[in-house]
Amino acid sequence: MDIQARIQTAMERHFQQILAVSTPPTLHAAMKHAVFPGGARIRPQLCTAVAMVCGEDDPFLTDAGAVALELMHCASLVHDDMPCFDDAQVRRGQTTVHAEFSEPIALLTGDALIVMAYQVLLSHRAKHTLSAEHSQRLMEMMHILSQGVGAPNGIVAGQAWECESKVDLWQYQRAKTGALFSASTSLGAVAAGANPAAWFVLGESLGDAYQIADDIRDVIGHIDLIGKPVGQDAGHGRPSAAQALGLEGANSQFKHLIETAAKSVPDCVGRDLLRSMIFKESERLVPQQAYQAYLNSHQAVQVSMV
Amino acid sequence: MDIQARIQTAMERHFQQILAVSTPPTLHAAMKHAVFPGGARIRPQLCTAVAMVCGEDDPFLTDAGAVALELMHCASLVHDDMPCFDDAQVRRGQTTVHAEFSEPIALLTGDALIVMAYQVLLSHRAKHTLSAEHSQRLMEMMHILSQGVGAPNGIVAGQAWECESKVDLWQYQRAKTGALFSASTSLGAVAAGANPAAWFVLGESLGDAYQIADDIRDVIGHIDLIGKPVGQDAGHGRPSAAQALGLEGANSQFKHLIETAAKSVPDCVGRDLLRSMIFKESERLVPQQAYQAYLNSHQAVQVSMV
Repeated sequence: MDIQARIQTAMERHFQQILAVSTPPTLHAAMKHAVFPGGARIRPQLCTAVAMVCGEDDPFLTDAGAVALELMHCASLVHDDMPCFDDAQVRRGQTTVHAEFSEPIALLTGDALIVMAYQVLLSHRAKHTLSAEHSQRLMEMMHILSQGVGAPNGIVAGQAWECESKVDLWQYQRAKTGALFSASTSLGAVAAGANPAAWFVLGESLGDAYQIADDIRDVIGHIDLIGKPVGQDAGHGRPSAAQALGLEGANSQFKHLIETAAKSVPDCVGRDLLRSMIFKESERLVPQQAYQAYLNSHQAVQVSMV
Repeated sequence: MDIQARIQTAMERHFQQILAVSTPPTLHAAMKHAVFPGGARIRPQLCTAVAMVCGEDDPFLTDAGAVALELMHCASLVHDDMPCFDDAQVRRGQTTVHAEFSEPIALLTGDALIVMAYQVLLSHRAKHTLSAEHSQRLMEMMHILSQGVGAPNGIVAGQAWECESKVDLWQYQRAKTGALFSASTSLGAVAAGANPAAWFVLGESLGDAYQIADDIRDVIGHIDLIGKPVGQDAGHGRPSAAQALGLEGANSQFKHLIETAAKSVPDCVGRDLLRSMIFKESERLVPQQAYQAYLNSHQAVQVSMV
């Protein structure tokens, strides 16, 4: 089974196990709407890939970590899309949760998904085979996940930096996106009983790369790639690397981060495979052809205006 | 140290330990605003009281459970007060979080408090003295807490029932308030290594009583008691026991639930003390003098209208 299929199966299994018939029907439908069909599922992919190359001995624990990460990510999207933030109508090519259901339901859906992330991990506690060492892994995973999401430095804090008048761009982006990426690689390592510290840089640099890629795409405009409207950063007056560094500077920084990520992969059996995954993902994040096309047309406009 | 002082100390300690200087300042201030000064802290009191009468052997674990419960409760208040729900301006005698800060900050504050509840419990995992059995207790506590908050039957689901056109009043109230009350007594029992099942009815009936008391006060009007505007249930078209049973029916039901709660306390050293606490709390919830005064004046109006 490839990683994407494995993640999809795990997502569906946990949804079925946790959401009983007594869940209020609209909430149930909204939670599903927020999570299925998914986007790239990049965070659970990262978690699973790292656990696999670390020689995982408890695939269900890896899966629980992967699903929990994706639920947290989906929760943050549902809340970010709400009128008091982005007021977005479209996400992943379908209507956003508040647009499809209502604002109250969107608010509750995010809350329920955050709690569900922990429920998924905790469902593993009841396993008869759970040794003391695996209990420690489980708690460490919940701790890492919490750090990636909550205060002081998780994605919720990242969003909160948008409400400050004085913001450090890197601290903001590190929290807003990087925190859950480094949680993803660390979670995968812990699930496999490996040292999470060795995998931290991979998650951190991929997170930074992903955020810059988002800023670049927001400028060059690829709604088909990201499934949401472009030009939102400038529209919301949000800090952006493409603004701070210029488009070409941002693209150079993006390439540098991808190189850093690839180099950081520790010595392990699947090292080459993982590195090739990273380069493939980088092309999906910022298609260099589209980037060049935008750059050329933009320069042409500047020349014609002289 | 009395229970209230113990809870206050634990709340402050965990706030100081988890929220580092790198927390975005507005989020930090809003999280504090949401939690301090507190209301009656009834859920952490219940948790602590049950753990104490069960002969707790790890007071820090009890405290972590108590604090986690209160953080979840505060998170739900912050989100419930937002414009898409109650649009409340006052809570516990001070401005609500969205009114004091902003809607985005209120949304993030609720999210961060939910995650912080788990962070508080997980902070206990690093204790050197944590045995395998205490690890199990910790995970069981997180599981119970999640059930009290999330889908399918926690307080978030309770709120979501308000968005359904067809609602069972008891299922709604059981989830909206009862879920976190039964989690409170169960958490206290587990923290002390006792059987949570024996303490479930106490939490459940107190939760039901508390919800009915809320409905009664919403009619008889005691803003000084609850620190929020009265008449909200009718204004928001929300299901209410006072409407369903009539005011006198609701008051009888309230008294019956308090009796049930007191009778349910299992045989233990502090049984009498706990029962007297319950009766004292019941008088705070629905002051019978105020209830009678309202009833008399209401009957007088009816008589004069004949």
